[in-house]
Amino acid sequence: MGQVGWKGLCLSLFDYKTEKYVVAKNKKVGLLYRLVQLIILAYLVIWVFVIKKGYQDVDTSLQSAVVTKVKGVAFTNSSELGERLWDVADYVIPSQGENVFFVITNLIVTPNQRQKTCAEREDIPDGMCSNDSDCHPGETVTAGHGEGLEWPGPEWGAKGDLEEIKSKPVEPFLKKAEDFTIYIKNFVRFPKFNFSRNNVMNIKKKSFLKSCRFDPKNPYCPIFHLGSIIRWAGSTFHEIALEGGVIGIHIEWNCDLDKAASECKPHYSFSRLDNKLSKSVSSGFNFRSLPAVPGWPRSWAGVQWEDPGPVGNVGYRYQMIVNGKAGKFNIIPTVINVGSGLALMGVAAFICDLVLIYLLKKSGFYRNKKYEEVR
Amino acid sequence: MGQVGWKGLCLSLFDYKTEKYVVAKNKKVGLLYRLVQLIILAYLVIWVFVIKKGYQDVDTSLQSAVVTKVKGVAFTNSSELGERLWDVADYVIPSQGENVFFVITNLIVTPNQRQKTCAEREDIPDGMCSNDSDCHPGETVTAGHGEGLEWPGPEWGAKGDLEEIKSKPVEPFLKKAEDFTIYIKNFVRFPKFNFSRNNVMNIKKKSFLKSCRFDPKNPYCPIFHLGSIIRWAGSTFHEIALEGGVIGIHIEWNCDLDKAASECKPHYSFSRLDNKLSKSVSSGFNFRSLPAVPGWPRSWAGVQWEDPGPVGNVGYRYQMIVNGKAGKFNIIPTVINVGSGLALMGVAAFICDLVLIYLLKKSGFYRNKKYEEVR
Amino acid sequence: MGQVGWKGLCLSLFDYKTEKYVVAKNKKVGLLYRLVQLIILAYLVIWVFVIKKGYQDVDTSLQSAVVTKVKGVAFTNSSELGERLWDVADYVIPSQGENVFFVITNLIVTPNQRQKTCAEREDIPDGMCSNDSDCHPGETVTAGHGEGLEWPGPEWGAKGDLEEIKSKPVEPFLKKAEDFTIYIKNFVRFPKFNFSRNNVMNIKKKSFLKSCRFDPKNPYCPIFHLGSIIRWAGSTFHEIALEGGVIGIHIEWNCDLDKAASECKPHYSFSRLDNKLSKSVSSGFNFRSLPAVPGWPRSWAGVQWEDPGPVGNVGYRYQMIVNGKAGKFNIIPTVINVGSGLALMGVAAFICDLVLIYLLKKSGFYRNKKYEEVR
Repeated sequence: MGQVGWKGLCLSLFDYKTEKYVVAKNKKVGLLYRLVQLIILAYLVIWVFVIKKGYQDVDTSLQSAVVTKVKGVAFTNSSELGERLWDVADYVIPSQGENVFFVITNLIVTPNQRQKTCAEREDIPDGMCSNDSDCHPGETVTAGHGEGLEWPGPEWGAKGDLEEIKSKPVEPFLKKAEDFTIYIKNFVRFPKFNFSRNNVMNIKKKSFLKSCRFDPKNPYCPIFHLGSIIRWAGSTFHEIALEGGVIGIHIEWNCDLDKAASECKPHYSFSRLDNKLSKSVSSGFNFRSLPAVPGWPRSWAGVQWEDPGPVGNVGYRYQMIVNGKAGKFNIIPTVINVGSGLALMGVAAFICDLVLIYLLKKSGFYRNKKYEEVR
Repeated sequence: MGQVGWKGLCLSLFDYKTEKYVVAKNKKVGLLYRLVQLIILAYLVIWVFVIKKGYQDVDTSLQSAVVTKVKGVAFTNSSELGERLWDVADYVIPSQGENVFFVITNLIVTPNQRQKTCAEREDIPDGMCSNDSDCHPGETVTAGHGEGLEWPGPEWGAKGDLEEIKSKPVEPFLKKAEDFTIYIKNFVRFPKFNFSRNNVMNIKKKSFLKSCRFDPKNPYCPIFHLGSIIRWAGSTFHEIALEGGVIGIHIEWNCDLDKAASECKPHYSFSRLDNKLSKSVSSGFNFRSLPAVPGWPRSWAGVQWEDPGPVGNVGYRYQMIVNGKAGKFNIIPTVINVGSGLALMGVAAFICDLVLIYLLKKSGFYRNKKYEEVR
Repeated sequence: MGQVGWKGLCLSLFDYKTEKYVVAKNKKVGLLYRLVQLIILAYLVIWVFVIKKGYQDVDTSLQSAVVTKVKGVAFTNSSELGERLWDVADYVIPSQGENVFFVITNLIVTPNQRQKTCAEREDIPDGMCSNDSDCHPGETVTAGHGEGLEWPGPEWGAKGDLEEIKSKPVEPFLKKAEDFTIYIKNFVRFPKFNFSRNNVMNIKKKSFLKSCRFDPKNPYCPIFHLGSIIRWAGSTFHEIALEGGVIGIHIEWNCDLDKAASECKPHYSFSRLDNKLSKSVSSGFNFRSLPAVPGWPRSWAGVQWEDPGPVGNVGYRYQMIVNGKAGKFNIIPTVINVGSGLALMGVAAFICDLVLIYLLKKSGFYRNKKYEEVR
């Protein structure tokens, strides 16, 4: 038997076997079937292929390198500093063109005071002392903000956190910061397709780069006006120049590598991250650092310190957030989408069969025709 | 012929054609077939859809912005520095709240010594001189650590690398660093779904943020105790405070966007990266920088230098590593999974056919019924 | 009827139904059918599974942590600085081993000059003044480079941008920088598979790490010679040491987790990002910072300033760009590929049917056999 079976198998290997169909001259079911087929086809062609580009292999893990350069000078005339001209090296931290950088808009000096009180503002995240009784002179409130210290001599004092500074300035110290500009160079590479682009490639004329500013009319100019960025991010310079903030500069690359490479262009968008981040729970952004102004606190207010208190820096933190995806034709996803789409046709047939052989008046008749019983 | 063919095609377009089946009243094969069908169905429903959420489109390329704020003060009393109070600006490098930052636990001063010997510790990666004969006074060992220098005058000397410092402190200089806290703000966005979240959104009560500390009972408190992080990372503060180390703070977002957005919460975990990195090959972490302590080395030990030697900073490097994925219902993966699952049913039929028409006693009979030969 | 239908359904549930086939003894069509089947099978097995590893689930979103350590000392003897020995802390910015760092090759001092002219070099991106008439003494050209200032006293002066410096050095100040070395530690983790690796794991012998340098013969040595990196990136040290540049160090992980973990090794490659970035539109890389050399500008040229001008740093920016993908066997993609592949077989049958029942001489005959009309 088995042997005959194998023999038959081999013989019939090159006979063409095709399913035998029962043709039910029933236009209703026929129409239903064609309809379902059409729907599946439409889904496959229009939605999967035309709209969703289901024939493409997609790479979303891009490599990115960002270089930034801030330009601008500001002149300040304050009692502490006298006349002073600020330039990039003074107000950008760090100054080496990182993709995350900070622009000073305010300076808060915290001289080495001896601080006994420990009233903390409500909205300080990890405050320990909500009232004076909570902490005791002589011990450092490590997790707090260094209040509650009793220290011999003025040169060793607690350094209050910015939140403690009672005398907040009412005017941003560096108003001019609004008019500074950033030049952003962004290099991206899609490793899967070994395809590299950057955001100044398309710009052929140097003159354009000399004069342009990014705006809806110049969506590809890589030079941005700080004030505008803040406005586009949904807030105003003055509103948060005093408190500081975190601004996200989103650079999105959405590339169809089946088209010309020059079509692959960045799309810039801006958002404020800090209040999104914190919904009134300690929004704003500030940090304290060793004096950013060279040799300044030493001579600040004419006092000479052994150990100058750090300077409180309030300002904008700019954060480049680059992402993107590239798609390119690839046979595998194409086959997967076509194949699984066709497989669904089987479902259509299954449904129509049910209708035909169970739900129609003549179902019994069709059933007998469709299923040929053997004994 | 062909013309007739096309005519027939058009006519029969709306007839419903259904495969003709041969019903083999053989419960064995029938059972087998149903069984295989059931297995495939179970795999599809339980594994693919319920467990693996095969109906979802997944985005793993998230955008992330991290802002950190370290809190805490430490008091030291050393011969070099006398009484001194350290705060964030002094011991955190860089101080502007990056997602990679360094907390000093030890300071090693390298005064401008004239250094003749060049013994190097075994475990220095790119040491050039394993014994004194390997290098010669007067020439700089560029690729090494600057030993072997003979220099006129004490103010220009070789600056030995930390590894060379024979007199390592036995106690971490900033013991208090263990009790410092980090406040981590993490903003994430899944571009594919344009869905944004951050790790403090869910926290409604400010009071919670004031008092909470992260621990297994408060998995969503964004304020971390440094000592605990190090413990959770699998080592102890004292153990590596002297040698330094690299701690990874992993923030993982695993979001099901078919559920409520508030369900999308971060999961924090901690690991030590440096000894993983190096398996006893130069583990630990340190670097040398210009004095982090303002105006200190200048007056250090009362000596005034033209060119103070850099300070060796030993400590913990904290590195935020954010990743995550978001899934949301999408028709395309659903169709793909269903379709390809159904296609497998064909395999089931194929197997059962083989059994039926080749392996059974009555195979010959069934074969003749199934295959209607035409001539 | 319906009730009978349900009865019949239940009864026949465990009968095995198999399609009835019409065997057309037509070797041509049979051959065609087998051929198409073979092609699809070959595509599935060879292309999808063997070459493209279609049976694997892939994770492209890897977590990465990079720690770098630059080694080397350089001796300079200049009129401004006299004899000076440079080490890591002096010429690497930032010095704490980030994955993006900058190595100084040139220093350009901008003393506080009073500057009246405002000629700008052609290739300055956002220059405002193309000739002197464009800007007026007394007002700051905020978006420009601070020219056009008339200021009382030498200690408050405009600080010209590097591009303005007329006296560019002709020799890189730190020639030795070419011979410095970087030790790169890279830790990666594939979250989907919870699989961690690093680039020194495979190196068992410390002695190797002490002596090795990366080159085509030592592709796994994590210690790199700066000059070589620049050469491999396609430029020469001297060529851009004066102008500065941005060098990308790509670390690519391509891991097959179905093989031994030790097979998962990094692949290093190098490219220059800045001129790719800018095609002669302000290529090079430089920035200005507060003096990187401790206490230097203060005593520079023996002049004592209230406010020293920032130092122009020209040099190489090294940027680690880590990416990779890991693949591991997973049932779901396997089923998807197999299933959709099989579904395509239906297409083969469909085509052959068309040939058989419409394009052959005997089509009419076959058609009648295949389609059994019922009335």
